[in-house]
Amino acid sequence: MKNIVIIGGGTGTFTLLSGLRKYPSNNTVIVSSADDGGSTGVLRRDLGIFPPGDLRQCLVGLSYTDKQMTELFSYRFEKGSLKGHTVGNIILAALEKTTGNIETAVDLAAKLLNVRGSVLPASLKPGLLIAYLESGKRVVGEHNIDQPHFRRSRIKSLQLKPNTSANPKAMAALQEADAIVFGPGDLYTSIVPNLLVKGIREALGKSRAKKILITNIMTKAGQTDGFKASDFARNLQKYLGVAKLNYAIVNNQKPSSKSILAYKKENAKFVEPDVKQMERLGVKAHQAKLVSQVIYKKKTADKLNRSLLRHDASKTAKLIWNLIHQS
Amino acid sequence: MKNIVIIGGGTGTFTLLSGLRKYPSNNTVIVSSADDGGSTGVLRRDLGIFPPGDLRQCLVGLSYTDKQMTELFSYRFEKGSLKGHTVGNIILAALEKTTGNIETAVDLAAKLLNVRGSVLPASLKPGLLIAYLESGKRVVGEHNIDQPHFRRSRIKSLQLKPNTSANPKAMAALQEADAIVFGPGDLYTSIVPNLLVKGIREALGKSRAKKILITNIMTKAGQTDGFKASDFARNLQKYLGVAKLNYAIVNNQKPSSKSILAYKKENAKFVEPDVKQMERLGVKAHQAKLVSQVIYKKKTADKLNRSLLRHDASKTAKLIWNLIHQS
Repeated sequence: MKNIVIIGGGTGTFTLLSGLRKYPSNNTVIVSSADDGGSTGVLRRDLGIFPPGDLRQCLVGLSYTDKQMTELFSYRFEKGSLKGHTVGNIILAALEKTTGNIETAVDLAAKLLNVRGSVLPASLKPGLLIAYLESGKRVVGEHNIDQPHFRRSRIKSLQLKPNTSANPKAMAALQEADAIVFGPGDLYTSIVPNLLVKGIREALGKSRAKKILITNIMTKAGQTDGFKASDFARNLQKYLGVAKLNYAIVNNQKPSSKSILAYKKENAKFVEPDVKQMERLGVKAHQAKLVSQVIYKKKTADKLNRSLLRHDASKTAKLIWNLIHQS
Repeated sequence: MKNIVIIGGGTGTFTLLSGLRKYPSNNTVIVSSADDGGSTGVLRRDLGIFPPGDLRQCLVGLSYTDKQMTELFSYRFEKGSLKGHTVGNIILAALEKTTGNIETAVDLAAKLLNVRGSVLPASLKPGLLIAYLESGKRVVGEHNIDQPHFRRSRIKSLQLKPNTSANPKAMAALQEADAIVFGPGDLYTSIVPNLLVKGIREALGKSRAKKILITNIMTKAGQTDGFKASDFARNLQKYLGVAKLNYAIVNNQKPSSKSILAYKKENAKFVEPDVKQMERLGVKAHQAKLVSQVIYKKKTADKLNRSLLRHDASKTAKLIWNLIHQS
């Protein structure tokens, strides 16, 4: 069985996992410790726990149990003192409190959800993300980096504090991987924070896995403004050290003008599939029409902005599967 | 197998269930719809749900799963926006929201906890409890009745609004019962509210089960001030209609003076075992030393006053078991 490691953890990963279900791969998701927005941020500040939101989404993404249980886990309260919290976040918080560590908590939640595969925190302690901008300013906290209140200059570099060591299980998963997939997801708040954890980059460097980037459909204000597909590859590569990005899966389907308009409010634009530029970086690009027909509708109690447009899970998973089996 | 129905639902019932575990009985707990204190009260007001607290306690009491799961269900958050809430209450609230009804919610939670036996809401909608006092005043709401802020006159009568019909499954359980156990628990806030639900009293009247009262160890301010054991029987009988209380299990062990002193602050006193008076009411009394050696310690985030002294679960369960098998 092929081992696929996905580095990300946000909604993009969740979508990808739903596509990978059809294939007999052993999927591991490595999830960042830096999240601090929405329900996750509140629980983290209140209780000093590892941010649960991405762990929850990935656990549900790998779950093979009855719908009622995954619906329970994903249920988000719409009013009252629990407003905005999901049951899964609350359960993970309580499990970390009762067991004393996030690893056991995730294992128990995985058992509850009959998870196949693994969800691994990149490090075992929560971390604080700091972005240094080209303007010289700095932005503190994942949520502030993720959802800027005004236009700002580009991110020059990122730092994770404290500089804790990687989860040994995450290191082992990278070592045993046949493919390592980056994204889809927010470059600086979902993907790169994992690569800042001490040991992850070294493990990537030693890995013989095929390293595959899935570029986003749309840019994200404050993170990837003006990015074309090749910019995702170039900027990710900076954080990969000696590990070399081999492939990119690139969407070349422009979304409907209605969708484009909705994103305009968030200063987000279509990511141009500049595959020639990508190839010049030495990254083999596979382009396809990858925009899902399903338009995501946000829950009112969800305080985070989430992507309206998602990758078509089946098509994207199939491309990954083919890449892995291609010699 | 003998069918035991327990009417109560609070901490007393939880204790009793832990004792009944040893015996091969089929246990059903009928739980009131009137609770509105603590975490339960907040969730009920916020979300318009059936009060979850007693359901949760009873589900855990009947659970045969790993300790980690019951610990998760019982975990109470100690700070932040979730302070005071238990995970089980939150899960029941979410399940009622996702499934649309409390019965399915309890069934799913029971599956999660591998429950043997049943927990049945007395009615399927939340209810409001009103106490009419001898002074002519009235007290609205279970929590206000349960935890009075000042000394007040005795409760003359109780009312449950709206006057909804009983849960058909609760009626059926009463019909098939070999024994129906009342208490231990707060007379007017845990036991009697069940008997006010339309249909329950009639079902009790038709039942051929042995009807057993377990009198409390201590009186409760505002509810059973100055009560001796026989007063519990006499006052319960008022709400039973034609159903006749057959037996009472009466503690005759005076707690330590340290415990008595702790209860003095709450204006609670030892319940005298006036078994002769009890017999005069036609209730056969079985007295024994029933005070548990374990002194309960309250969690700081738990907003409710809970009994420090509990019945000895093993001894009490054994007495019930013997009573059932006695011809």
